[in-house]
Amino acid sequence: MSNFNIESEYPLLSKIDSPDDLRKLPVESLPGVCAELRKFLIDTLSRNPGHFASNMGTVELTVALHYVFDTPYDRIVWDVGHQAYCHKILTGRRDRFETNRKFGGISGFPNPAESKYDSFIAGHASNSISAALGMAVASKLNHDVKRRNVVAVIGDASISGGLAFEGINNASLSNSNLLIILNDNDMAIDQNVGALNEYMTHLNTSKAYNALRYKVYKFLKKLHLIDEKHKNLILRFNNSVKALLSSQQNVFEGLDIRYFGPFDGHDVERIVRVLKDIKDMEGPRLLHLRTRKGKGYKPAEENPTVWHAPGKFNKETGERIVEDTTGKPLKYQDVFGKTIVELARRNEKIVGVTAAMSTGCSMNFLFDEIPERAFDVGIAEEHAVTFSAGMAKDGLMPFCCIYSTFLQRAYDEIIHDVAIQKLPVIFCIDRAGLVGDDGVTHHGIFDLAYLGSIPGIIVSSPMNEHYLRNLMYTAQLGKYGPFAIRYPRGRGVLKDWHNEMSELPLGRGRKLKDGDKVAVLTLGPIGNDVADVIKSLGDEGCHVAHYDMIFMRPVDESILEEVGRRFSHVITVEDGTVDGGLGSVVTEWFNNHDMNVRVHRIGVPSCFVAQGTINELRQVCGMDNESIKHKILEII
Amino acid sequence: MSNFNIESEYPLLSKIDSPDDLRKLPVESLPGVCAELRKFLIDTLSRNPGHFASNMGTVELTVALHYVFDTPYDRIVWDVGHQAYCHKILTGRRDRFETNRKFGGISGFPNPAESKYDSFIAGHASNSISAALGMAVASKLNHDVKRRNVVAVIGDASISGGLAFEGINNASLSNSNLLIILNDNDMAIDQNVGALNEYMTHLNTSKAYNALRYKVYKFLKKLHLIDEKHKNLILRFNNSVKALLSSQQNVFEGLDIRYFGPFDGHDVERIVRVLKDIKDMEGPRLLHLRTRKGKGYKPAEENPTVWHAPGKFNKETGERIVEDTTGKPLKYQDVFGKTIVELARRNEKIVGVTAAMSTGCSMNFLFDEIPERAFDVGIAEEHAVTFSAGMAKDGLMPFCCIYSTFLQRAYDEIIHDVAIQKLPVIFCIDRAGLVGDDGVTHHGIFDLAYLGSIPGIIVSSPMNEHYLRNLMYTAQLGKYGPFAIRYPRGRGVLKDWHNEMSELPLGRGRKLKDGDKVAVLTLGPIGNDVADVIKSLGDEGCHVAHYDMIFMRPVDESILEEVGRRFSHVITVEDGTVDGGLGSVVTEWFNNHDMNVRVHRIGVPSCFVAQGTINELRQVCGMDNESIKHKILEII
Repeated sequence: MSNFNIESEYPLLSKIDSPDDLRKLPVESLPGVCAELRKFLIDTLSRNPGHFASNMGTVELTVALHYVFDTPYDRIVWDVGHQAYCHKILTGRRDRFETNRKFGGISGFPNPAESKYDSFIAGHASNSISAALGMAVASKLNHDVKRRNVVAVIGDASISGGLAFEGINNASLSNSNLLIILNDNDMAIDQNVGALNEYMTHLNTSKAYNALRYKVYKFLKKLHLIDEKHKNLILRFNNSVKALLSSQQNVFEGLDIRYFGPFDGHDVERIVRVLKDIKDMEGPRLLHLRTRKGKGYKPAEENPTVWHAPGKFNKETGERIVEDTTGKPLKYQDVFGKTIVELARRNEKIVGVTAAMSTGCSMNFLFDEIPERAFDVGIAEEHAVTFSAGMAKDGLMPFCCIYSTFLQRAYDEIIHDVAIQKLPVIFCIDRAGLVGDDGVTHHGIFDLAYLGSIPGIIVSSPMNEHYLRNLMYTAQLGKYGPFAIRYPRGRGVLKDWHNEMSELPLGRGRKLKDGDKVAVLTLGPIGNDVADVIKSLGDEGCHVAHYDMIFMRPVDESILEEVGRRFSHVITVEDGTVDGGLGSVVTEWFNNHDMNVRVHRIGVPSCFVAQGTINELRQVCGMDNESIKHKILEII
Repeated sequence: MSNFNIESEYPLLSKIDSPDDLRKLPVESLPGVCAELRKFLIDTLSRNPGHFASNMGTVELTVALHYVFDTPYDRIVWDVGHQAYCHKILTGRRDRFETNRKFGGISGFPNPAESKYDSFIAGHASNSISAALGMAVASKLNHDVKRRNVVAVIGDASISGGLAFEGINNASLSNSNLLIILNDNDMAIDQNVGALNEYMTHLNTSKAYNALRYKVYKFLKKLHLIDEKHKNLILRFNNSVKALLSSQQNVFEGLDIRYFGPFDGHDVERIVRVLKDIKDMEGPRLLHLRTRKGKGYKPAEENPTVWHAPGKFNKETGERIVEDTTGKPLKYQDVFGKTIVELARRNEKIVGVTAAMSTGCSMNFLFDEIPERAFDVGIAEEHAVTFSAGMAKDGLMPFCCIYSTFLQRAYDEIIHDVAIQKLPVIFCIDRAGLVGDDGVTHHGIFDLAYLGSIPGIIVSSPMNEHYLRNLMYTAQLGKYGPFAIRYPRGRGVLKDWHNEMSELPLGRGRKLKDGDKVAVLTLGPIGNDVADVIKSLGDEGCHVAHYDMIFMRPVDESILEEVGRRFSHVITVEDGTVDGGLGSVVTEWFNNHDMNVRVHRIGVPSCFVAQGTINELRQVCGMDNESIKHKILEII
């Protein structure tokens, strides 16, 4: 149980039921609110795990934003959104925060379906500036009588994504009331990469100049020497002079966005003052705040990557309560990580590419072993794919490892830069299928559909660790063009993951069990659950055939022919959307071959699925063991 | 007939069968080669239309590149690629250039399947830097004994795309031999937009500074004071001093890319000298060239937008040979353009968004009439969609008009930013289906598949202009969430496009004709061709039922039920990939409803289709009138 309603523990926070309550406090109380928020985060997240370090870093920023701006009338658009816990706590969800990321509870990310304070969806990086710009333009065109401020809060990792750049490049299009807050903690999920990051570090080294510029602005404003018209003139003149002198500009000023900063993102009273100062300015502005991930909790400050999502921990000792994994199967991602190293040692053409998910997808194993052949391009999925295509074009064999949900962003590059040229890019699609507590924005359920309609791409999914390794081995033999291998979040199913790898014949599945009632065709590890169901049915005397398809494209036609000949009903089970997945391929094949077989497609139905445990979500989708068993019995 | 083989007309060009021949010439001959290339372009393109102005602008650049670099060993990666005609002419395709963009001829864009000189696919903007970086890295990892130079040639419009930014941001990751050439003609297909463009204009105003910097570099190099190690030190020191003084940097230098320019892109001898100077430098470099679209042909210089792809013209007078359109139906894009103006006048919530296709999709009609509610975000499809989502979130009704093939790039944003939030963004998808002579990279054939698996999106296609208008009218009533309307390139079918608009019931098609043999279900304007086929069959006494489905999602179940009850064979016809399109939806529906109907799916099969006339390509795909007729008869 949480202690949040004990007034003595949280004298300030316990009285904040909405930002209105916050705004009634004197500014001097805000550090106290921040301290209580930190305590509350530590207390709650030590018991109910979630994103930790990033939220500890945005405490002051969040308090200041809701203090200065008139939310929800003013809009705060969080980028990525896993740093918005304090926002949730301050906006009426304090008492429900215990249910964070749980089935039926509140989402770990902002979602307008949950609260009017969540002004836009968050989950995929780099969308905040574009969305906020849209809102700022809408406010103008709606002729809102009261000025509406729109604030995008974006991290230094997200701002390097192409979408964010497109947003920045367009921000000055219309003179809209858009404030971009750059939450610069010098850290993405993994270490940030790329030149923009260097650039920001550099900006920080020249505080004096920017501080001066800000002071001059404030001074002129105080003297009422700046109205909007004159201010623009002055700034433009200023820019022109600099330009004449050196042709050099601050990158944001160069893009016509007024730049302020960097300021200490943990000095809440200062942030409040700065926000009040720049709040009423017209036109796009960028406020650069330096924050520290894990701020206020020493273990997290010292190791923010581990404390990004640390799981449960002992809040007193800072000891993480690490699950005992003795005897448990490895995670699929680790099997990938160890296998790519093994393969890369034998095949010097192999390189690894990921997009800010090096730890998450275990590409760090390759970084540790063969760093010159491992590439983390930052939050830039499109570039990751086209960069891989370029390498493949000139003879390398890239394993491009990206979570299913994020690979959506490179859909066009997969078609245009990879598939048309039939390049041997091997897509290792991690987090495929339902992902659990990250929820609606993170489920990797569309990949089978969006890859399945692209000509020439091999689409596969292993049922276990050995098949993952065999597929990776097969893909790098140099016989094929684009080759996608999808596998889920979490652990495998085998005690010994390390088989001697062998080549799999393209487009061939395998019969796991014969039967006489009905045939079930599965793709990927969900086949193991189906095998359990079929086994229990067998124990009851009901014999169901089971095939592990391994490949969705090309599909194993010999299995389909055999099954179509022997059964009038076939069930397909896959961990993805049924529209466009294995079930569709099988249905269409029987139709095309004039075989009168009724296909029952089990998978994620055509809807968006919220957060919960995998099993809770499978129940919602009718794809848990009980539902599958029920379906089989119903057909028989 | 071309005159290219008449030596007196083209004394230099007629002897250049490959870049090797070019490289044998003295540098003083290059202006002559350029003049002949221009003459050749004017002569050929006046008869066989293609992209004109952009190619006239890259004559000197292309000659200089092939003169200085050892192509094809060195790689030239063209961005977009419609400016690569001179490249094709100089690399052995001079004699085949008459077949440019024709069926069985050479593609209007670079394509490695066509020539070893085309080092990467081009067609969709902004991919060149990422692909070239991949090649540069590959050269390093392949331990090429001879240094391989990789050059990306990108325009000032393409460089504002998010993918290009991601590429630039990563270019300095590894010290690769990457040269980026910024072909700055201050013009995309339409006027360029955004702050980056402003920035570049600004760079041009400070020539003196940059010229000086370049001279200093050359001077030091001449004195052998610069080896790679020292040069880096010097430049870094230089940057640091500037940084300390003002915290200001050139945006490219800020991103660790050495910047040279701007230079006159039409002074071929100068470009050759500059390229030779910077060719052997290590690490990423950017060379900024100022070029002029249409250079050397006055009408095109004066009106580069019109002369982007002018069609046939009289080369002597500069008069475009404009097709007499009297009595011809309007283009679908113009019906869209006129209709959005009509609707926007009545519904003040309507705004228009496009991504550098304002003329191409006729959004310029809205720009002319209600400019404050029309937005061209430049080459930034992702931003276009998320920006639209932001506006929709705050009450506006955006019509987001993007070509089908380019909308692929915003697939993730459609899911994440629009569909999850059920926002009323209306996607007007122009150039849907086979597009003809632009070829493999431009066909809009995947949209039905990639939209069809996204929950909650309405996917529709009108059979003619009236239905396009009715769908647009229906979409903006405020009753629905995301609403996609796809229509093809080219002209409609009606004499009078201007109907009184009326609401269409959601997910309802219409029966066009009853029949007794078989039923044909069509989606979109291809239904008119099918109607012709069915009429001619009817004349022969064979009565085929025909339904215009209008909606693919939600599909009209009452039609499917009726058809399934009455026919054992159903044919679907659509102008898109059969995998995941209407045919799939129909097949799955019959399967799900246990109706034993065999569905024959006609559309683009699972392969990439080259260029040609629409009819030629339909024949290839088995979806021309003759093939459809044959199919129907075969079934009967």
